[in-house]
Amino acid sequence: LRLNRFFVLFLVAFAVLFIAFGQSKPAGTPAHVPTYTEDGRLLPPVGYREWIYLTTGLDMSYTASAGMDGMRKFDNAFVNPEAYHSFLQTGTWPDKTMILLEGRPAESNGSINKAGHFQGQDLMGIEVHVKDEARGGWAFYAFDSDKPAEMIPKVASCYSCHQGHAAVDTTFVQFYPTLLPIAKQKGTLSSSYLKDESKATK
Amino acid sequence: LRLNRFFVLFLVAFAVLFIAFGQSKPAGTPAHVPTYTEDGRLLPPVGYREWIYLTTGLDMSYTASAGMDGMRKFDNAFVNPEAYHSFLQTGTWPDKTMILLEGRPAESNGSINKAGHFQGQDLMGIEVHVKDEARGGWAFYAFDSDKPAEMIPKVASCYSCHQGHAAVDTTFVQFYPTLLPIAKQKGTLSSSYLKDESKATK
Repeated sequence: LRLNRFFVLFLVAFAVLFIAFGQSKPAGTPAHVPTYTEDGRLLPPVGYREWIYLTTGLDMSYTASAGMDGMRKFDNAFVNPEAYHSFLQTGTWPDKTMILLEGRPAESNGSINKAGHFQGQDLMGIEVHVKDEARGGWAFYAFDSDKPAEMIPKVASCYSCHQGHAAVDTTFVQFYPTLLPIAKQKGTLSSSYLKDESKATK
Repeated sequence: LRLNRFFVLFLVAFAVLFIAFGQSKPAGTPAHVPTYTEDGRLLPPVGYREWIYLTTGLDMSYTASAGMDGMRKFDNAFVNPEAYHSFLQTGTWPDKTMILLEGRPAESNGSINKAGHFQGQDLMGIEVHVKDEARGGWAFYAFDSDKPAEMIPKVASCYSCHQGHAAVDTTFVQFYPTLLPIAKQKGTLSSSYLKDESKATK
């Protein structure tokens, strides 16, 4: 009887510790979820430079005119780690995905650099594409300061363009070099993207 | 006596579990350290796309001729998370730092993109700059396949150029927009970099 009681208590202690250490997130890595003000504005995501990097474009434009008045711009894309790891498994995005685009000036002739472009320190705006089923699905937000941002209205052209041309779940995975092969393999490419691609190769 | 023996065993069990769960890294986040073959070649770093992103350059060159024969190239820079977090605290790099440069083709006119450049799927080589005190400090390695790479000999020009012009500890922190302000604040900018900058502003 003595051994028995002892053994049970030992098991309970083990179970408690296992749950405590096994299930809680390790310190310093809280979950990354979109956070809103009471009136529904999105708070600027914190620490996104430690999220997963997706890609960078330079002066990307959906119209033929480069425009920009000589001002050249890099756009760096990041995604929260939970969504990235889910994409690797499924080829698409889970609820609470945040894809963030950070603009940086494309500078030249600095330090020993004589040709090409490197990124400057000034932030040129932050845009976030958030999938939040509790708030009607994907939505865009644009930040030009550290203040919360209102949702860009769903009639804006970004929504229809992403809907009509984006490779996976209204996101431009065709420009994410490490994720496009996964979407192909998992069969998650959108019919509108496949239609665009089939037109382009004709 | 019964209680006492019981209590000691309980403490031992607790201590064992605490050490096991508390000190080991949580599952899925092993330490990122340079790993070598027996004859001293560096193994290609695994999973670096999940490291911390530093910056991207386009066609960066230290000579005035762009060259490249019309082939345009993005370079994405990543660093292992341990080194990044240490830099945030100290303004310089700890032992076992790995800074990795990944080349990607700069493509145009794909999907709906009509101007500017986005990154293609082909890898155009990987270079790693490793700080390993046990092997004589900073060293460069270049990979063009998934085979281990020999250290680039220390007489190569990359070493003298990094030594002579890099902002922090022989690394080009002047091109990492989020880290340069930290190095300034911590006072870790190299004297050779400060000399270059003071010449440039004259």
